[in-house]
Amino acid sequence: MNTYQRRREAVRVWMKQEGIALAVIEDFEAKRDPALRWLSGHPMDALLFLSAEGGSLLVPWDVILAEKIAPDSLVENIVPFTTFDRDAAAAIAGAIQHFGVEKGAAIELPSATTYPAFCRLRDTLAGYTLLCREDGLSNMIKAGRAQKDEGEIAIYRQVSAITNTLMSLIEMGVKAGTLQTETDVALFIEREARSHGCEGTGFGTLCAGPQRSFGIHCFPSYTNGPFATTGLSILDFGLVYQGYTSDVTMTFARGPFSARQKEMLSLVIEAAALGVGTVKPGIRCGDVGKVVNIFFTSHGFSMPHGLGHGIGLEAHEAPFLVAKNDNTWTLKPGMIVTVEPGLYENGEGGCRLENDVLVTENGNEVLTDSRIVWL
Amino acid sequence: MNTYQRRREAVRVWMKQEGIALAVIEDFEAKRDPALRWLSGHPMDALLFLSAEGGSLLVPWDVILAEKIAPDSLVENIVPFTTFDRDAAAAIAGAIQHFGVEKGAAIELPSATTYPAFCRLRDTLAGYTLLCREDGLSNMIKAGRAQKDEGEIAIYRQVSAITNTLMSLIEMGVKAGTLQTETDVALFIEREARSHGCEGTGFGTLCAGPQRSFGIHCFPSYTNGPFATTGLSILDFGLVYQGYTSDVTMTFARGPFSARQKEMLSLVIEAAALGVGTVKPGIRCGDVGKVVNIFFTSHGFSMPHGLGHGIGLEAHEAPFLVAKNDNTWTLKPGMIVTVEPGLYENGEGGCRLENDVLVTENGNEVLTDSRIVWL
Repeated sequence: MNTYQRRREAVRVWMKQEGIALAVIEDFEAKRDPALRWLSGHPMDALLFLSAEGGSLLVPWDVILAEKIAPDSLVENIVPFTTFDRDAAAAIAGAIQHFGVEKGAAIELPSATTYPAFCRLRDTLAGYTLLCREDGLSNMIKAGRAQKDEGEIAIYRQVSAITNTLMSLIEMGVKAGTLQTETDVALFIEREARSHGCEGTGFGTLCAGPQRSFGIHCFPSYTNGPFATTGLSILDFGLVYQGYTSDVTMTFARGPFSARQKEMLSLVIEAAALGVGTVKPGIRCGDVGKVVNIFFTSHGFSMPHGLGHGIGLEAHEAPFLVAKNDNTWTLKPGMIVTVEPGLYENGEGGCRLENDVLVTENGNEVLTDSRIVWL
Repeated sequence: MNTYQRRREAVRVWMKQEGIALAVIEDFEAKRDPALRWLSGHPMDALLFLSAEGGSLLVPWDVILAEKIAPDSLVENIVPFTTFDRDAAAAIAGAIQHFGVEKGAAIELPSATTYPAFCRLRDTLAGYTLLCREDGLSNMIKAGRAQKDEGEIAIYRQVSAITNTLMSLIEMGVKAGTLQTETDVALFIEREARSHGCEGTGFGTLCAGPQRSFGIHCFPSYTNGPFATTGLSILDFGLVYQGYTSDVTMTFARGPFSARQKEMLSLVIEAAALGVGTVKPGIRCGDVGKVVNIFFTSHGFSMPHGLGHGIGLEAHEAPFLVAKNDNTWTLKPGMIVTVEPGLYENGEGGCRLENDVLVTENGNEVLTDSRIVWL
């Protein structure tokens, strides 16, 4: 049994416990769901159906791509989406027929199903019990994806090493003057990513010189403007290796600094160490976020975003290190999260330091070596 | 009244007709909705509330960014998302209070609201009439966005001109041998886009040499592999200017060709002319798609995707030139659509030709000059 089969089997065991006959996974442009790739190896644009009785059915938009990839995943059946007139409801009806799902049986839809789509399906699939829950199948898969297995951790060691190499090359290029603009840096990453065997970047690289670094996520993501001139510049990027993305943020700091900038820099450095030191199995994810929030508040600052998040097939996935009352997640060995404290002010610019941290049996291991680069 | 105010006023007139007291627009990472930018100028990561009685409230994730942009859009009120603990439900409750929306009044949510989120809101906002409809507010805004106004058409003339320039530069670079790999081409586009004043690219550039061009959307989007070597190579890209994206596809064809490749090339060239010739006001969008489907079928081929789609603040938006029974859209002057017939075969590779077409009062105007590049 390969990795994909093992994962599908775990879902099936869960489905039987929950009394679900058919599970629907859907990834299209309107709503991405990496559960598709996690369970089938097929990267995008498809429906995947799992029957509790065994057997899987992949309905891809691009059947040629699916047939090239499917041998690895051992998905039992592939039927082109065109067979169903590229209509998701028709494909679900087709899967019901394919697996012989009986009337009255429970079918679980993705939790991202919109309210109008759910109402339409309830009408067209009258006689079946349709489920669409945040604490159901989607959450079960989220929890599975959050705790990386050995193969995934091995991938993370590789993508972290490549990310670390690139960070050093970027620091060198900026110091040597070969990388001068935001675009220089962003395109250097795109090219080096591919020459190091990566699929690409995990999200639009955020590269902001001192004039634009006030933005939590700068807009546009990078421009022709200068990078790493006097003041605070932010570089936030991730590399994708075999589907999995890293996510790091460096701050490039060139003096002279204002007193406020010095304070922001030293607080962020301290907060990063504090946050990483808090990461260990058993701690509630909200509490990790809370520790850093309290630290900033005690110094008269506040951070406008969460402390960190899981990484994997998505750049932002469970668990989230966010101090919210409804955050019920707890850190477990195998989870990989970012820790990324940041402070931003109009006029002063922004400062963020982000590393990727693997939760181990006893504590944690920092996989990346992002840093403040002093110029 | 500026453009954003005019658009918001049109929404308010519609809200009064429909008896809706409060409209909710939401754009976050989990579900993008360019209606936010279209109505407020704020590019991303925020909630926007419109009251039928007048007044708008923007709740941005990044309040510094919003305050830098808001003066243009004249949004009346800005309250940071952190005020509501970065919780959308709490922000909606806050907006109800802000505008003094009375119990029993109708509140319309985005049609992309998930079924579980809708059910939770129905509980927490008991006493209000919550609407979430595909044919409601979201559709009204989609229709408004689909028909470009004069300012938007002027932007499209500019982004089309830049796109045309880049296509010529790429053809030149490929012929001169300075652009040799998929990455060379993709990064050339990223750099030139910005040096021509664009925000960036409208989607991950799809650049596939002959070994990978079988994919409708190649995966990964570009690699270190060779581009434009013997066979069929596809380049599909868009440039974003002031928020609006172009979308073109060139096929680079280097002989000698197989008989099948020759047939695919000539059919796609004919289909592109046929499709563009069909675009005019009053025709049903499904019928434009059907004409080309019938053409391919009569020659023993079939196209695995729709013929085209609207472009604007999104790379794929209404109307869709797709031959489906539930496609009720009709072309109107001011709409800008792609026409992009394509054929793909394992072994032969793929071939697609895509241009952007403005629907005029009497027919159409082709804005871009994408072409088959013969090498």
